[in-house]
Amino acid sequence: MHRVVEGEYVLLWGGPDANYLSEYKAGKVVHSHRGKITLPEELYWGDVVLSSTGRRFYVIRPSNADFVLRLRRKTNIFYPKDMGLVLMYTNFNPFSKVLEVGSGSGAMAVVITRMLVPPGKLYSYDVNPRHQRVARENVERYGRSENVVWHVRDVAECGFWEKDADIVIIDVPEPWTIVPHAYRSLKGGGFLVFASPNVEQVKQTRSEMQKFGFFGIRTVELLMRDWHIRDVGCRPDHRMQGHTLFYTFARKVRSV
Amino acid sequence: MHRVVEGEYVLLWGGPDANYLSEYKAGKVVHSHRGKITLPEELYWGDVVLSSTGRRFYVIRPSNADFVLRLRRKTNIFYPKDMGLVLMYTNFNPFSKVLEVGSGSGAMAVVITRMLVPPGKLYSYDVNPRHQRVARENVERYGRSENVVWHVRDVAECGFWEKDADIVIIDVPEPWTIVPHAYRSLKGGGFLVFASPNVEQVKQTRSEMQKFGFFGIRTVELLMRDWHIRDVGCRPDHRMQGHTLFYTFARKVRSV
Amino acid sequence: MHRVVEGEYVLLWGGPDANYLSEYKAGKVVHSHRGKITLPEELYWGDVVLSSTGRRFYVIRPSNADFVLRLRRKTNIFYPKDMGLVLMYTNFNPFSKVLEVGSGSGAMAVVITRMLVPPGKLYSYDVNPRHQRVARENVERYGRSENVVWHVRDVAECGFWEKDADIVIIDVPEPWTIVPHAYRSLKGGGFLVFASPNVEQVKQTRSEMQKFGFFGIRTVELLMRDWHIRDVGCRPDHRMQGHTLFYTFARKVRSV
Amino acid sequence: MHRVVEGEYVLLWGGPDANYLSEYKAGKVVHSHRGKITLPEELYWGDVVLSSTGRRFYVIRPSNADFVLRLRRKTNIFYPKDMGLVLMYTNFNPFSKVLEVGSGSGAMAVVITRMLVPPGKLYSYDVNPRHQRVARENVERYGRSENVVWHVRDVAECGFWEKDADIVIIDVPEPWTIVPHAYRSLKGGGFLVFASPNVEQVKQTRSEMQKFGFFGIRTVELLMRDWHIRDVGCRPDHRMQGHTLFYTFARKVRSV
Repeated sequence: MHRVVEGEYVLLWGGPDANYLSEYKAGKVVHSHRGKITLPEELYWGDVVLSSTGRRFYVIRPSNADFVLRLRRKTNIFYPKDMGLVLMYTNFNPFSKVLEVGSGSGAMAVVITRMLVPPGKLYSYDVNPRHQRVARENVERYGRSENVVWHVRDVAECGFWEKDADIVIIDVPEPWTIVPHAYRSLKGGGFLVFASPNVEQVKQTRSEMQKFGFFGIRTVELLMRDWHIRDVGCRPDHRMQGHTLFYTFARKVRSV
Repeated sequence: MHRVVEGEYVLLWGGPDANYLSEYKAGKVVHSHRGKITLPEELYWGDVVLSSTGRRFYVIRPSNADFVLRLRRKTNIFYPKDMGLVLMYTNFNPFSKVLEVGSGSGAMAVVITRMLVPPGKLYSYDVNPRHQRVARENVERYGRSENVVWHVRDVAECGFWEKDADIVIIDVPEPWTIVPHAYRSLKGGGFLVFASPNVEQVKQTRSEMQKFGFFGIRTVELLMRDWHIRDVGCRPDHRMQGHTLFYTFARKVRSV
Repeated sequence: MHRVVEGEYVLLWGGPDANYLSEYKAGKVVHSHRGKITLPEELYWGDVVLSSTGRRFYVIRPSNADFVLRLRRKTNIFYPKDMGLVLMYTNFNPFSKVLEVGSGSGAMAVVITRMLVPPGKLYSYDVNPRHQRVARENVERYGRSENVVWHVRDVAECGFWEKDADIVIIDVPEPWTIVPHAYRSLKGGGFLVFASPNVEQVKQTRSEMQKFGFFGIRTVELLMRDWHIRDVGCRPDHRMQGHTLFYTFARKVRSV
Repeated sequence: MHRVVEGEYVLLWGGPDANYLSEYKAGKVVHSHRGKITLPEELYWGDVVLSSTGRRFYVIRPSNADFVLRLRRKTNIFYPKDMGLVLMYTNFNPFSKVLEVGSGSGAMAVVITRMLVPPGKLYSYDVNPRHQRVARENVERYGRSENVVWHVRDVAECGFWEKDADIVIIDVPEPWTIVPHAYRSLKGGGFLVFASPNVEQVKQTRSEMQKFGFFGIRTVELLMRDWHIRDVGCRPDHRMQGHTLFYTFARKVRSV
């Protein structure tokens, strides 16, 4: 078993409804609704620690999804299932140059920066400095802040600073306002992605994309269902998220 | 616009039902069911080229999903939507040490190797050398073969060579036979993932996982639905994939 | 076992892809792509008959869904799963007074008339006499034509003849044009149902309904998934209908 | 507008979360969490009545689904969407002879009896007299009790009293125990339906059905999703029921 190093994040797992993401420091006390958990001098991945009320907590590694789901939030958030789609339906790789607007709560930035290696870089834009501060804090805590550049800027009005991006990810209420700027800042053949909760936003933004040279436009939604797998019988979970966001993907081609 | 470099893969897109993945070489002829496409001396990303029958093909960058969906296949295959889930519901990052069994058609290996940077490494096992040859060819063509080590070996019988893996991905018909070996080869807190089409496989494998020290076991299925977004009216696509695979995720903890 | 009576419809079932709906007559020959099936003098429900090529066909009772799915079609069609929703999310019963526009292929009329008993009655409107002829033929063949009154009439322009309906079912491309007429022809507290493939039609029609006194408006979609239940493993079917129609339900109240 | 007659059930609708099903009697007081609602001497369908706290309640007709969703429950319950499926994927009509086991909370019996006309009849069995009492009370209140015959009897042990049924509906935890009895009591070509939450129950029951002469066996699940249709944007509801029951349909043929 490997020892947990100071500064690493551990997930203290006491059950589906009682788990805590915490930066490890010997002697640190984590407050849970099942009592205090004191992190010992010597802690190994996969260990069990007991809370002050005698409840067991497993010391496990957080998944990328765990970071996303535990962010401090100020705005709507990307869901892990959907973020996986962004990684797969673009040509994302560790050296990608990615532009993002808005910064939101930093969910996408946490995941993207964890997947990047220099010269790969994320440029994250938000018009609202307070929103972006939350995103920055979340990335400093859970992501790799050396892989991101933050810009406070009204992209709809002023565009992106960067050119030759591999991927532009749009998550703002009026995505159509970003489309011309995305076109100018993307490489030929590069990927535009936008996320919207409503059908109308999708329609208006796609219409704008068609005026510019975007191609192979595809809109999808993703439904994830949990299963109960038990000795007494296997069945889908009764609870299910009915909707998160519609995702639209396209590539820049030469406008004709 | 950026010029396409010899050896880069281009997607020649003539529409949803006519697109071809091809390694660029000046003067190369690609045969399509809409005529021959001759790749010019000077080709730029986002360009349009005409086939011998006068049909337009866009020169776009392949997404990770495009590689997966165009693999030569010998066996069942991972779907991009599901592979995104694997990236998100583990702690995958460019430096991960990942074990995979079996190699399948190399779909997972193509994606994983494209996302890795040394010392990150994928170790891909298959008991069948012919299957693995297909996987190797696919990774050599579309992935980053420097990031993978191939083993022909019966893992159910003999286990993995490596220890201290971050992630073990199982895609064999009897995943429960791999569970004890996965346990031994994972780091504390490390991630086990397996994919199965049938409920019974899920049940039997989860039961085996509980005998060992796996924890936080979760099984999900993912449904992706395309949308028709048109001026005359927006609606879901009539066609939809009703099922791909069930995915199960868990972490290794100290067996107690 | 009960004998099949001349004039009853039998479903000759040779498998999921080879089944034939036929009115029974002794000596009748049914042509199938697995050979000719000659219906014997004496035929019992649940019997097996052999085709001229020696293939087995079971003689089973058609379900309501079987009739719907085998209609001669001229237009879009209701799906059995959705028609069940109409029966449940209204106060439909054998004595209901139901107005329908348009007649479509008669799918809804086949089912509704099979469920009605006098004085229950369906009034089916279509602006197009040729469409309605198809619907009539289908109801005469598979439904209970004594329970339906056919009107060729432009309801959007001229309204319904009847008043005090329990239920109005709208299945036309511009459902909003029918809303004021539906309001006038419904009983207090009566049910309006409309079916539309596109989100925009739903939105526009609901907006019209709110101008009149419709209340408790609810829009749903229904996804049905088949399962493969086999000894070697249970799993959802890979094929699935991704979309049929959106259904909207509401009740008439006093406009205020 | 039509006057509400004493004894009719009205739905007092104050919003999606505040609606009350009540038998009308002039002067009756209905207690709501938005104040007392006094039903006036003269009440018309579609009227608005005010509660003692000044909140508006619409007087609307209950749908079949409304009755189902407001039953006093002792056991698992059928869902309206699924009950519609039963009506459509059998040959149900007002004159059907239907056997049901168990009686459950009477949900199916409420709907079936509302759809029947003599000589159509439902025979509802339960081994537990207390369960059946709840079902009876619910049918007496909301259904048509003249169309049902109640039997307290262990069908798994002793079978059904009736023969020549059109439809047998099974909703017990061990549906396979009922299969031989259903076979004996069905007409040739008649319909067997069973509802189960778990995959294993479906598998075991289907296996038993195949030993007897059941044919055309089909298992489905149904997902219903609500939509938010608003001026500011249309989208699926975030909440959704992830699972109710698996439904299996088959027909009796001559065992061979």
